[in-house]
Amino acid sequence: MPPLDMLSATLGPAACLRAEEDIAPYAVDWRGVYHGRPVAVLRPADTAQVGEALRLCAAQGLAVVPAGGRTSLCGAVVPGADGPPSVVLSLERMNRLRDVDALDNSLVAEAGCTVEAVQNAATEAGRFFPLHFGAQGSAMIGGALSTNAGGIRTLRYGNARDLVLGLEVVLADGRVLDDLRRVRKDNSGYALRHLFIGAEGTLGVITAASLKLFPRLVTRETALVAVRSPHEALRLLARCQESGADLVAFELIRKVCIDITLKHGTNIRQPMDLSTDWYCLIEAASTHAAIPVREALEGALMAGLEAGEAEDVVLCESEAQRQNLWNIRETFPTCSRMEGPGLPTDTSVPVSRIPDFLDRSAALIAANWPEGRMVALGHMGDGNIHLSLQAPAGMTHAEWHARAPDFEDRVGEIAVELGGSFSAEHGIGQSKRGAMAALKSPVALDLMRAIKNVLDPEGLMNPGKVLP
Amino acid sequence: MPPLDMLSATLGPAACLRAEEDIAPYAVDWRGVYHGRPVAVLRPADTAQVGEALRLCAAQGLAVVPAGGRTSLCGAVVPGADGPPSVVLSLERMNRLRDVDALDNSLVAEAGCTVEAVQNAATEAGRFFPLHFGAQGSAMIGGALSTNAGGIRTLRYGNARDLVLGLEVVLADGRVLDDLRRVRKDNSGYALRHLFIGAEGTLGVITAASLKLFPRLVTRETALVAVRSPHEALRLLARCQESGADLVAFELIRKVCIDITLKHGTNIRQPMDLSTDWYCLIEAASTHAAIPVREALEGALMAGLEAGEAEDVVLCESEAQRQNLWNIRETFPTCSRMEGPGLPTDTSVPVSRIPDFLDRSAALIAANWPEGRMVALGHMGDGNIHLSLQAPAGMTHAEWHARAPDFEDRVGEIAVELGGSFSAEHGIGQSKRGAMAALKSPVALDLMRAIKNVLDPEGLMNPGKVLP
Repeated sequence: MPPLDMLSATLGPAACLRAEEDIAPYAVDWRGVYHGRPVAVLRPADTAQVGEALRLCAAQGLAVVPAGGRTSLCGAVVPGADGPPSVVLSLERMNRLRDVDALDNSLVAEAGCTVEAVQNAATEAGRFFPLHFGAQGSAMIGGALSTNAGGIRTLRYGNARDLVLGLEVVLADGRVLDDLRRVRKDNSGYALRHLFIGAEGTLGVITAASLKLFPRLVTRETALVAVRSPHEALRLLARCQESGADLVAFELIRKVCIDITLKHGTNIRQPMDLSTDWYCLIEAASTHAAIPVREALEGALMAGLEAGEAEDVVLCESEAQRQNLWNIRETFPTCSRMEGPGLPTDTSVPVSRIPDFLDRSAALIAANWPEGRMVALGHMGDGNIHLSLQAPAGMTHAEWHARAPDFEDRVGEIAVELGGSFSAEHGIGQSKRGAMAALKSPVALDLMRAIKNVLDPEGLMNPGKVLP
Repeated sequence: MPPLDMLSATLGPAACLRAEEDIAPYAVDWRGVYHGRPVAVLRPADTAQVGEALRLCAAQGLAVVPAGGRTSLCGAVVPGADGPPSVVLSLERMNRLRDVDALDNSLVAEAGCTVEAVQNAATEAGRFFPLHFGAQGSAMIGGALSTNAGGIRTLRYGNARDLVLGLEVVLADGRVLDDLRRVRKDNSGYALRHLFIGAEGTLGVITAASLKLFPRLVTRETALVAVRSPHEALRLLARCQESGADLVAFELIRKVCIDITLKHGTNIRQPMDLSTDWYCLIEAASTHAAIPVREALEGALMAGLEAGEAEDVVLCESEAQRQNLWNIRETFPTCSRMEGPGLPTDTSVPVSRIPDFLDRSAALIAANWPEGRMVALGHMGDGNIHLSLQAPAGMTHAEWHARAPDFEDRVGEIAVELGGSFSAEHGIGQSKRGAMAALKSPVALDLMRAIKNVLDPEGLMNPGKVLP
């Protein structure tokens, strides 16, 4: 029987899409940059079917590209253009919440639950699931774990990796690694789950996860603070961390980003006088109304004004005002595309090196591409600034990329020289394999290849991703 | 040249102890249970020397047992009695703090720094390093990471693993994996460091780590609460977690433990009327004086009294009173040895299953060893209860162990049946390899062996530990 007929017969026709028009949505990535040619899309209904699918694919020599909400920004979830015959294995039908335990502060979700669905389930149980990023309504938890998603709350709750208590993973040969426990201490051998988290499906398929929940946040206070430079922002961050106002976000935003959002966004109001070049969007929250979050944050910001760290402060008085600030932050990616082409990056450095990182990046741009604008915003609290080089008016993306083909790599180099990473929260996928080859230590690459070889000896799991 | 002469010539005589009396302290474990016969003790001064040592040992076929403060409770840091010729590789001379960066909330310490030295360095920088356990004055950070140490603050700050930003590791062949970055987001390939954390030196030698620091805790409030049973304790825990009083410890203590400590301890005062069988030792803390920790904790405990979760509450009024409570908790292990032999365990279950776990363990004991006393205290907030079966008066350890040889394994089975782990925070070492074989999933063991084989193909790194 031909391989696809066998998959279809075993999994059922609903779990094996073969028609061109059914496959088409899975053949292109979120940003429309990467195109692949999957021979079929498998949509297993449960873990056993994932095991069957992987066994059959292994037997037939078919490569497998695991996919969730397919919001990857680095081409991780479509087959490579020149890769081997591949199926996309979509976890979208595995979207059950297997368990919610408020007393245990844990929840067990299948890979196909959206991040937002997990957040909502936590809320219904009177708890809080902190993972939060722009694509959360589409992104699925399996993909969020496979890319170790970050977002704005990393400074308080860590990355996706840190929210996991246990995993269920189907291996390349179809066996199930059932490590779906909900324990907070477990020293029984090697920490296998951490291999699969962030591996972008190249070592196996995450089918379910047990996740940590937290006490609900019942009060929150949000402020926008004008600062002279990232140096002052760094000192203000330390002051806020010491203030007792538990921070859930500390974002750094360059003025140009606010300008662009005011120009292209809808219903965005200018939040304050924009007389400095840099702004901090700060949010603090607490788990109980008796905690004086507002007083603590206000006290820190007033002291920051006095110390010359802050130039001007707006502490939100209403939810509408707060929403306006977050709209500026979260609609910026869309608005920047309306402004024109940009060359984005996703790097991290030690938090204390952010000012150096921005100074050196600005110097790099001034020396090489003075016609471009340095757009910078991101997660100051965890060292992850999204720097982008915005094209001058009238230029196409192709022209701009041809003008600065090595911009992303050179910013990555600066980050690595400052003790950081050329890939912070988006992953490697197809787009950063060159940077992996150039910037990752040969010893680390050697170990990664050896581990890949152990877990996927035939090289069928998401080939052409992560490893150079 | 004979192997030891070559090691001595290369590393220098100070780094290669060969005299019987110099080796003796390294030949026996902390509890005096495990005895090995190392042929030498290597004490390298820096990472390059560790690399040299491992290269030479690999070339000579000498096994290597990495050691720090040697406080392992499971025989992880002495050679196995019937193992191959081995050297102990002590990291004790590598005790430099390479970097402290308060603005970055990070610190880089070599493996031979004691946990307490790291705590002190953090305090000097105006920050806080939360890892905290009984042996912290002797235990070294390399060992604490190699066993993924837990302790009492896991409920707020996680385990040792969660405190790591980056590692430096010397591999079995002497190569250095330099991943000593201080970034909080890094998605550049597989998370190699998590393999070495908790691997007990079987995959390589951790030589340095970059560690997370936190804001200092400036206020803390401590309470002892009498509860009818662990069921009430569980509900009280949830109430405290929702109270806004940020918990740093929530310990569960059975009355018999307090009795034993009052009997054998020095300067221990009875903390309250001991009319119930179970007690919760609760500590909350905050990073700023303006946070009303005392009011929040007191409010939760008073509400707990009203709801019938708590029977009686003592909220400490002085540091002396607080110290008395922690003395009861922390001198119990010593006092219990004075009381007589016990059979200890180290298991974890989901927090919400602790009452079931204790009920089932009590039933196991009643049915099989009714003459023994169930001693139970531990970290309720993270699911890790240290249950022990205390011998009747007059019995030797050998007699008691012969009477209940499978006690530890059967408690481990209960934990696993409840979705927990037979090894929570002490690790596997030599003592729990049988449990690994019996209770760990064959798929997980298979992957662990394959990974071991990749990283240590000659099987020279701490042989006879962790893997069955």
